[in-house]
Amino acid sequence: MSKFNQIRSYLTQNRSRLAVISDPVTVNYLTGFYCDPHERQMFLFIYSDREPVLLVPELEVDRASRSLTFDVFSYQDSENPWQKIRQALPRIDSEIIFAEFDHLNVTKFRGLQSVFLGKFENITPLIQEMRLIKSPEEINKLLVAGVYADYAIKVGLDNIRAGRTEMELVAQIEFELKKKGISQMSFDTLVLSGNNAANPHGIPGKNPIQNDALLLFDLGVVCEGYTSDITRTVAIGRPDQFKIDIYNLCLEAQLAAQNFIKPGVRASEVDAVARGVIEKSGYGQYFNHRLGHGIGMEVHEYPSIMAGNDLVIQEGMCFSVEPGIYIPGKVGVRIEDCGSVGKNGFEPFTQTGKKLQYFDL
Amino acid sequence: MSKFNQIRSYLTQNRSRLAVISDPVTVNYLTGFYCDPHERQMFLFIYSDREPVLLVPELEVDRASRSLTFDVFSYQDSENPWQKIRQALPRIDSEIIFAEFDHLNVTKFRGLQSVFLGKFENITPLIQEMRLIKSPEEINKLLVAGVYADYAIKVGLDNIRAGRTEMELVAQIEFELKKKGISQMSFDTLVLSGNNAANPHGIPGKNPIQNDALLLFDLGVVCEGYTSDITRTVAIGRPDQFKIDIYNLCLEAQLAAQNFIKPGVRASEVDAVARGVIEKSGYGQYFNHRLGHGIGMEVHEYPSIMAGNDLVIQEGMCFSVEPGIYIPGKVGVRIEDCGSVGKNGFEPFTQTGKKLQYFDL
Repeated sequence: MSKFNQIRSYLTQNRSRLAVISDPVTVNYLTGFYCDPHERQMFLFIYSDREPVLLVPELEVDRASRSLTFDVFSYQDSENPWQKIRQALPRIDSEIIFAEFDHLNVTKFRGLQSVFLGKFENITPLIQEMRLIKSPEEINKLLVAGVYADYAIKVGLDNIRAGRTEMELVAQIEFELKKKGISQMSFDTLVLSGNNAANPHGIPGKNPIQNDALLLFDLGVVCEGYTSDITRTVAIGRPDQFKIDIYNLCLEAQLAAQNFIKPGVRASEVDAVARGVIEKSGYGQYFNHRLGHGIGMEVHEYPSIMAGNDLVIQEGMCFSVEPGIYIPGKVGVRIEDCGSVGKNGFEPFTQTGKKLQYFDL
Repeated sequence: MSKFNQIRSYLTQNRSRLAVISDPVTVNYLTGFYCDPHERQMFLFIYSDREPVLLVPELEVDRASRSLTFDVFSYQDSENPWQKIRQALPRIDSEIIFAEFDHLNVTKFRGLQSVFLGKFENITPLIQEMRLIKSPEEINKLLVAGVYADYAIKVGLDNIRAGRTEMELVAQIEFELKKKGISQMSFDTLVLSGNNAANPHGIPGKNPIQNDALLLFDLGVVCEGYTSDITRTVAIGRPDQFKIDIYNLCLEAQLAAQNFIKPGVRASEVDAVARGVIEKSGYGQYFNHRLGHGIGMEVHEYPSIMAGNDLVIQEGMCFSVEPGIYIPGKVGVRIEDCGSVGKNGFEPFTQTGKKLQYFDL
């Protein structure tokens, strides 16, 4: 069933004739057209019984019309978009109207309420459910994005030099990717050395890479609308045994969780497997975030791999497995692969080796 | 009056005891603490008659506590944040509760409604008004961000070579900025050659810079929480006279608008001045966007410089002046400076010359 038909049949089941899609990522997912309208308005109107219609800012109308097979209408900056919607769309008589409550802000929501009478309900759960299981085409795109993530790690490792700063390594990684045509990273690239890596949300700075310490890379790219995300931690010089033990503990947890994943287990159980390994060694308090997040068109999406999430893992789900151990002032390690769930288990999108690698400055 | 006191007195005037701030940029603006909680929850609770309190995800609690002088509480991924709020905060008896309607999504809104009884009203207009007039300290930060934007243009111009692609120029610009410690651009850097520049939302590609054509750069950086934004168009080789005429027309419009700006004129009038110049020559239809947008902690904020906006320009407002002329298949030009409004007029944050510059491949 096509994505549109899936939504149409959901509408019909729920005695609704209209869904209003506001999240640019959902619009892209459903139509292949991407546009970030910023503070302007963009809505995709999906009807149970007629063709969809897209409203875009005037600036985008040509590009949208060229790439879509259904009607597009637009408004200028000086026009009132709500009035324009009222004039352009057929009067619709629907008891229930669906909108994306997890995206739509209250002001836009009130704008829609001024145009459409009826009770609004949330379509986010359906969209999340649709996006939760990736098609083989989507998994291929995630694999390609993963290849570039592996390449980015390689660039980082190849450029480790005495005196080089975290930020210089970030610059070099992104430079080489841009040259390959990657215009966007999934998020700001992280290169964190020593104590800076012991902060799970540390920020790269002008401090040179430390010797006899660990060095952490966390990065990803956006490629054809799909994202990647990888974390690797490596050794610089000869870190003390404690740091190496913590690295190996984190790796043990990561591999245990990866090996545990298969269709039928629960998200909370996957988290518990990794957490159990770290807790058993007495470092549970230093693994202070969930094990993983879904990945797809967005670098953070559903499912969330964490305690309390009873979701049953199914084939086609894609997410990260990224335990971390952060002991302030001492050591920080995180190891992350994203992958898809296949019949027989977890199939990572990234292949960079995880046995602790050593680099000399 | 401190920012918090400004909000407190607004609450009192409106018979409210509580404002709930959800936009990470507003939290940063008010407290100096920045955190993007992604799909997690972060709320700053500002009371009319007691100290503020911040809720953050567990991961952020240490960093927040260190940088703030008031109470911070947190929730773990496996906890229900709404329950945590209900338990942690004093019961508040307020008829009216303010929230950021232009930021808060409907799901979070309903979460807050489950915790706080009372009528919710929108505090976005007050926050926008507060952010609309920049302090001298803020203007200094915008000037510094502008210096880096000028530098970025210089890097781009210095690297014009035969065979070099748009994307390679993007890569080189961002590489040099990262080396200077700039970790984030305001938006994806645009380098557009020839016909690609004739699309106001063109995307840099693997196509080499064209000869005898125009080349457009649109970029900005984030520096200490403040953004910059500049566009320059230059000539490569010897573009035909028509292209040069269109460039000079766009420049005339840009300068006319800049020179017109002073405290007391209306935003719509500033737009009309630039538009008038272009319309007079018969190219009005090819200038299909507003003249400018506000700039500050975000690269697009209030005020919007466009037809229909009767806002009176005041000292301390900061925005872009960026007319563009896009004739599909023929030529594309945009020229942009952001600046602040001073007693005597517009004071640009960027200084790169605007007389048409020529470069040989």
